[in-house]
Amino acid sequence: MTALATQRSDGVGLVERRSMSWLDPLQLDSGATLAPVTLAYETYGELSPARDNAILLVHALSGDAHAAGRHRPNDRRPGWWDAMVGPGRPFDTDRYFVICSNVLGGCQGSTGPSGLDPATIGAESPRPYGARFPVITIGDMVRAQARLIERLGIEQLLAVAGGSMGGFQALEWATAYPERVRGAILLATSARSSVQTLAWSAIGRRAIMSDPRWRGGDYYGHEPPTDGLAVARMIGHISYLSEPSLERKFGRAFQGGGGPRFTLGPEFAIESYLAYQGESFNTRFDANSYLYITKAMDYWDLPARYGSLDAALSRSQAAFLLLSFTSDWLYPTSESLIIADALRRLGRPVEHIELESIAGHDAFLVDYEPQGPIVEGFLESL
Amino acid sequence: MTALATQRSDGVGLVERRSMSWLDPLQLDSGATLAPVTLAYETYGELSPARDNAILLVHALSGDAHAAGRHRPNDRRPGWWDAMVGPGRPFDTDRYFVICSNVLGGCQGSTGPSGLDPATIGAESPRPYGARFPVITIGDMVRAQARLIERLGIEQLLAVAGGSMGGFQALEWATAYPERVRGAILLATSARSSVQTLAWSAIGRRAIMSDPRWRGGDYYGHEPPTDGLAVARMIGHISYLSEPSLERKFGRAFQGGGGPRFTLGPEFAIESYLAYQGESFNTRFDANSYLYITKAMDYWDLPARYGSLDAALSRSQAAFLLLSFTSDWLYPTSESLIIADALRRLGRPVEHIELESIAGHDAFLVDYEPQGPIVEGFLESL
Repeated sequence: MTALATQRSDGVGLVERRSMSWLDPLQLDSGATLAPVTLAYETYGELSPARDNAILLVHALSGDAHAAGRHRPNDRRPGWWDAMVGPGRPFDTDRYFVICSNVLGGCQGSTGPSGLDPATIGAESPRPYGARFPVITIGDMVRAQARLIERLGIEQLLAVAGGSMGGFQALEWATAYPERVRGAILLATSARSSVQTLAWSAIGRRAIMSDPRWRGGDYYGHEPPTDGLAVARMIGHISYLSEPSLERKFGRAFQGGGGPRFTLGPEFAIESYLAYQGESFNTRFDANSYLYITKAMDYWDLPARYGSLDAALSRSQAAFLLLSFTSDWLYPTSESLIIADALRRLGRPVEHIELESIAGHDAFLVDYEPQGPIVEGFLESL
Repeated sequence: MTALATQRSDGVGLVERRSMSWLDPLQLDSGATLAPVTLAYETYGELSPARDNAILLVHALSGDAHAAGRHRPNDRRPGWWDAMVGPGRPFDTDRYFVICSNVLGGCQGSTGPSGLDPATIGAESPRPYGARFPVITIGDMVRAQARLIERLGIEQLLAVAGGSMGGFQALEWATAYPERVRGAILLATSARSSVQTLAWSAIGRRAIMSDPRWRGGDYYGHEPPTDGLAVARMIGHISYLSEPSLERKFGRAFQGGGGPRFTLGPEFAIESYLAYQGESFNTRFDANSYLYITKAMDYWDLPARYGSLDAALSRSQAAFLLLSFTSDWLYPTSESLIIADALRRLGRPVEHIELESIAGHDAFLVDYEPQGPIVEGFLESL
């Protein structure tokens, strides 16, 4: 998904990368345990003396802890939700203490498959986990985040907010830790992964795992499986965009203008764009993390966890805000309605708004302007 | 796309594979020429003495000349459109002479990249074209078919019928050879490839061409690029199906029942199904043909060819029948409407029917029952 454009104001300015580690094993849904566990995170704004103004932002598949600001003055782009986070912005850092952490299994500072496998420390050649990293779930990601929030001294979050897989985590927070969440903001998300999203991610994994450079996951120190990850990313990318936005952005234009060159290589502008997306993703993402995180997304099935969606949501004590987008065919409005309808049946506070957009699933990140006042109002109401 | 189920009656019974070859060069849209050219074809029924009962069936991406019947009594499956072709079936072989040929660039008997490159004959090691095969277009496919139809002694076709890429060819026939086509049956098709279909096929080609076993196209006599072709086919397959049909067929069921096994490998039924689709496609399709045929599809842009869709269709003298399917998101009804509206503006005979279906793009092959009487009636009217 594309990053947000910079806004006029400076936003949160320069920010620091932080991390926290635990030696005591984290219990995973699979039955395995994981130790040590490190989470990379960033914070923006100040925790109030009453510790009641903390908002946790939870990221999507390809996101990271860097939600806002810049690490260095010359960074080309700010964090992935910069337009929404900062003084006077919807997640107003003059009022709120905003936290974002890289998910467990990620590749931007948190413990994941590219991290050193402690079982190999002291061995002749210590090496990264690779495919020996345990398979994780959205529940595991949130269990790790809960440690971070505790350690930051926060008993209750004012809100948890995220889109797509971030919405999975926000739902998990609201149902697994009901007393710790006052508000949940769910954007372009679902109570369980649909079979179609599951199919796309399975094809992406197949592309990665059949790239000979994947080497069973042990490619660290070698050429990584860039072709497989590029194909996986391209599939994802098209599923994030709507047909009308593709038509508007690229149409059937040939790269560099003109007509067909009658070659087997890329000739259309959309092909060059996809090739660029595939390449640039390789510079910032680890193929094994892609496998583990998409797997966690595939397992996501909140109704199955508690017997039914109503049973799951009846655990929650939070107020809910759901936003969905007209042209999002990956996490369509119908998925948000399923959640909103269940909450209404349960008599829980819920607001669901469908926003007009041609940006597809990407809308939750790029069409931030209409979201701003809605999010602001919701936070105000908590 | 899945093959049709066998019907109760015997249909056309046993059929023969035929082929026809030409030594005189075929002029291609790219400016190149191709010689010799062979087309594999089959025929069902008898040509009338007046030679006025011939119907040409044109196949989709993964189709071939084997539209109906069986080659051997024990063949597990009949031809790809068997339910529609035979005595008493919509393409009634008691009345019509039905012809189907494998497209130029294909891998089922017609000249394509897996065929011997004549430039290497007499050389030390004659070898298949591979990526030295010229890039072709839908126009080239139809130009080759026109030779076949001429050689069969048919001046005018009663009808040309096909779905998806078959619809591209039927449109090309009706506009490039207007005096030779009385009726055109277009199923689930479009006057030009949309940028989204173009994107899916570009990703599939990227998967094939980055499979190291592709070897720049020279894999014949070696292990073929089965991983790349499998990924390409899986992408295609999901784009052919609708979300509701995926939910109904597979849902979130785990293969073999039970729950997650917490592995990186395939665990859901949809994953096993996709893996099977990828593997079985490899047993019957050539990866280079996949590259060339999808490329021809990407170039498909009838309006661009003649300046506008109206200009293109005003050339035609045919009556048109268009069928589209409610859940087809790859070639949605809106694409058929664009064609039907243009024909209506031009005052040409056209009937467009949208059929209810949950089968997605695949509906044109699998939901044949509602199509039968419509096609029958249309042919009757010609």
